[in-house]
Amino acid sequence: MSGTKEIGRAMQGPRGTRDLYPAEAARRRWITERWREVAVRHGFEEVDGPTFEESDLYAVKSGEGILGELFQAYSGKSPDEVERVKATGRAPYAMRPEFTPTLARMYAARAAGLPKPCKWFQIGPFFRAERPQRGRLREFLQWNVDLLGGEAGSNLNEYDAEVISVLAASFASFGMSPADIRIKIGSRRAVLAACARYGAPPHLYGPDDLSPSLLRLLDDRLKITPDEFERRAVELALPDEFVKYCHPVDRAVVPLDATVSDIANIFGVSLAQAGEVYADYHQSGGLSECIRQSGFAHWCEYDSMVVRGLAYYTSNVFEAIAEGERAVAGGGRYDNLVKLFGGPPTPAVGFAMGDVVLANLLQDKGLMPSDAELMGLVGQTPDVFVLSNGDEGAEKQVRPLVASLRRGSRAPQDSGLRTQDSLHVRHSYKATKNVGKLLKEAAQIGARFAVIVESATEATVKDLRTGEQWADRVPIGDVGRRIAELVRGG
Amino acid sequence: MSGTKEIGRAMQGPRGTRDLYPAEAARRRWITERWREVAVRHGFEEVDGPTFEESDLYAVKSGEGILGELFQAYSGKSPDEVERVKATGRAPYAMRPEFTPTLARMYAARAAGLPKPCKWFQIGPFFRAERPQRGRLREFLQWNVDLLGGEAGSNLNEYDAEVISVLAASFASFGMSPADIRIKIGSRRAVLAACARYGAPPHLYGPDDLSPSLLRLLDDRLKITPDEFERRAVELALPDEFVKYCHPVDRAVVPLDATVSDIANIFGVSLAQAGEVYADYHQSGGLSECIRQSGFAHWCEYDSMVVRGLAYYTSNVFEAIAEGERAVAGGGRYDNLVKLFGGPPTPAVGFAMGDVVLANLLQDKGLMPSDAELMGLVGQTPDVFVLSNGDEGAEKQVRPLVASLRRGSRAPQDSGLRTQDSLHVRHSYKATKNVGKLLKEAAQIGARFAVIVESATEATVKDLRTGEQWADRVPIGDVGRRIAELVRGG
Repeated sequence: MSGTKEIGRAMQGPRGTRDLYPAEAARRRWITERWREVAVRHGFEEVDGPTFEESDLYAVKSGEGILGELFQAYSGKSPDEVERVKATGRAPYAMRPEFTPTLARMYAARAAGLPKPCKWFQIGPFFRAERPQRGRLREFLQWNVDLLGGEAGSNLNEYDAEVISVLAASFASFGMSPADIRIKIGSRRAVLAACARYGAPPHLYGPDDLSPSLLRLLDDRLKITPDEFERRAVELALPDEFVKYCHPVDRAVVPLDATVSDIANIFGVSLAQAGEVYADYHQSGGLSECIRQSGFAHWCEYDSMVVRGLAYYTSNVFEAIAEGERAVAGGGRYDNLVKLFGGPPTPAVGFAMGDVVLANLLQDKGLMPSDAELMGLVGQTPDVFVLSNGDEGAEKQVRPLVASLRRGSRAPQDSGLRTQDSLHVRHSYKATKNVGKLLKEAAQIGARFAVIVESATEATVKDLRTGEQWADRVPIGDVGRRIAELVRGG
Repeated sequence: MSGTKEIGRAMQGPRGTRDLYPAEAARRRWITERWREVAVRHGFEEVDGPTFEESDLYAVKSGEGILGELFQAYSGKSPDEVERVKATGRAPYAMRPEFTPTLARMYAARAAGLPKPCKWFQIGPFFRAERPQRGRLREFLQWNVDLLGGEAGSNLNEYDAEVISVLAASFASFGMSPADIRIKIGSRRAVLAACARYGAPPHLYGPDDLSPSLLRLLDDRLKITPDEFERRAVELALPDEFVKYCHPVDRAVVPLDATVSDIANIFGVSLAQAGEVYADYHQSGGLSECIRQSGFAHWCEYDSMVVRGLAYYTSNVFEAIAEGERAVAGGGRYDNLVKLFGGPPTPAVGFAMGDVVLANLLQDKGLMPSDAELMGLVGQTPDVFVLSNGDEGAEKQVRPLVASLRRGSRAPQDSGLRTQDSLHVRHSYKATKNVGKLLKEAAQIGARFAVIVESATEATVKDLRTGEQWADRVPIGDVGRRIAELVRGG
């Protein structure tokens, strides 16, 4: 009759996606609200774009091959689109794998009217078609923080430092310290200079960019054996001097707060030579100085191994790395992308952080709050739990009282996000009238107050956090006011 | 070199989707946070599922034809999936057009371990492949509120009333009144009873459900002319008595707070007959009584025209209708759906509300806050704007002070959502040193305080809301504490 058939099993969600029951949803909310709070505190404004985009948007940025890594989509209602997909296997849309193309498109479309610089963040779902594994799902959340444009003559290192500050502040906000995670900064310009200095073959770099094959090798350095690295370096015909410069066993890591003698130790050079390197790292207006001014230098270090794999970065790049070389976030400067999408030449810097690796790391470090704590942290524990003492007249008052406390007394035109005196109220749906059991239920869900309706007209209030004595009986109509007083008082 | 090509135009997002620049994103945030606040206040817990699901999930519920209304998706990485799509035009996944199938699947998978009843809400993006028009986009946000299960013997009308309360409370929370919007309640059981009473042909209804063709006609009643209605009624071979019963010109609308004499007027019957109808509407434990106890009866009315078009509703159904018969939200009881997805028989009631029609309605009613107000309502206006008086030593202190106020002094292990003394701080990126211009910029973005760095060591603080006199100069290191005092003081 209904055109449906019954199925005999509980269906699963698609492989590599998540069902968020209340505890998991609270965890997501906790993470996304902290991301948001940190971005807002640094003066970034929220934006968002469509969850799916035209496939061309990604092909323009990364080449047609990228579509093989994405979930492609088409309208089942459009015979045209269905026919095109059947003929070519290529769909007109793709579920977004990253935000940067959307961001560049949005900035390009309104560049003239936007503030300079333009500070945007975004939080939302992203998708990739790869095989799911620990830390990698096919649907995940991502936080994007980007700073685009700027007045002529502004120091771009200040912008890079501001974005890196947001990244470091977010880790602090999750309870981490520099011992837990390092922000490693690399320089594409330094690699380009080395290409020129050591005579790398011209097909491996241009005036402003490194070839995808060279980038891939450099980005893979720490994931492959030194032998494998050397084999691939020979394949690319890299000169010995360049191979030595970028060899994974010769990694140079220089903390941003390193002294001259630290640098002498790291590079095995004289203090005089180290002084020159130090001066180079610490020139006025340089990235180091800008990051030091932000107060986050102790989270950061230069690392010659960091180049990032994506083609579109143009200068400084950075990664947040936890133990075991886990990359929790990555970003860098991409000064050519807005122009690629039809906008004016626009300097830009940004990073992205996914929720899956972050949540695993917090879990491993013991920094993920318990389920009960999370409910409190995201504002989902009840203010009040209403029960009756079992008296029939009292029982009849439970639901109307619950409803009235939830409504509160505010005028409907008040437009604050959280109304002043409307309360988060629950009651038991269980048949039991046992006051002890009901109080236990109230405590279990973390309710702040219990209201026990004692008769058709009166109730008592108990503060479950302090365990404070029963107050005098109050008229049922005054319960809301009494609780407001208690909240203000404590 | 990079494998990309430059494009000469700013690309658009897909037709029927939205780019959310900061003002639009703030509007979305304002709406979703109010939805969330109302749901949480009524004891509902947040859940979510994947943004895309297996196509079968929707085909099971609504038949294979539904796929022609959806965005279908497949992994571009899987040769299998690409081949299947090329061969059949049918993809293994669909971007979710609604939440109910995911909800039913999630409930079915864990039914035994979930609380009874289970009160869930969800907010997220949804997709449909139809042609975009005012109030209908191809990607939109939806708020879902559902109450599933319950102890044996519980009164399901109480659950229906609780869900309807959330719906009414949300409208109140957006500043609306019962004059702006009505919650219209219909009964599938009443229509079923009429089918039996007036001898409708047996292919149009079963013991528990109405046929899709009859539902479609009844749901269309107010959108078509009475002539068209009569023509389609004849096509379905509906008996004259039944046609009269459900004729659109004979609409019966009974406010839940109607008196006996109201009812006598509405139906044109005697007071004695109206008394019987009244008693029927107001029996103890009935839906009317439950809604009256919630305090939202004045938002609600029974309307014989409301049946909802979807096949899966089983009993009470309801719609929120604004002027011009605009449906802003709809829902009802669907007691068979969890079983359909392999779970135990589970009573359930819920509704969905989309953001597009709601935002249009708020706009039309003058209830949508201005862009500047929205920034404040979603907590995105700055606490502090830092500038210098133009002195060179002072100027150098601007960025370090901005960074230090943003960091605050809290211990990193504090895990509250909003840290206590870290502030949302901005400064000017413009080259100007003109204090008047900078204070104007601070006021324009709604900053609460301006901090003017006066020298390398001292600053003054101005409360931009009260316009309060300059305070005495304070050491730069004390600015954070001074602002905290001012916030506590006022």
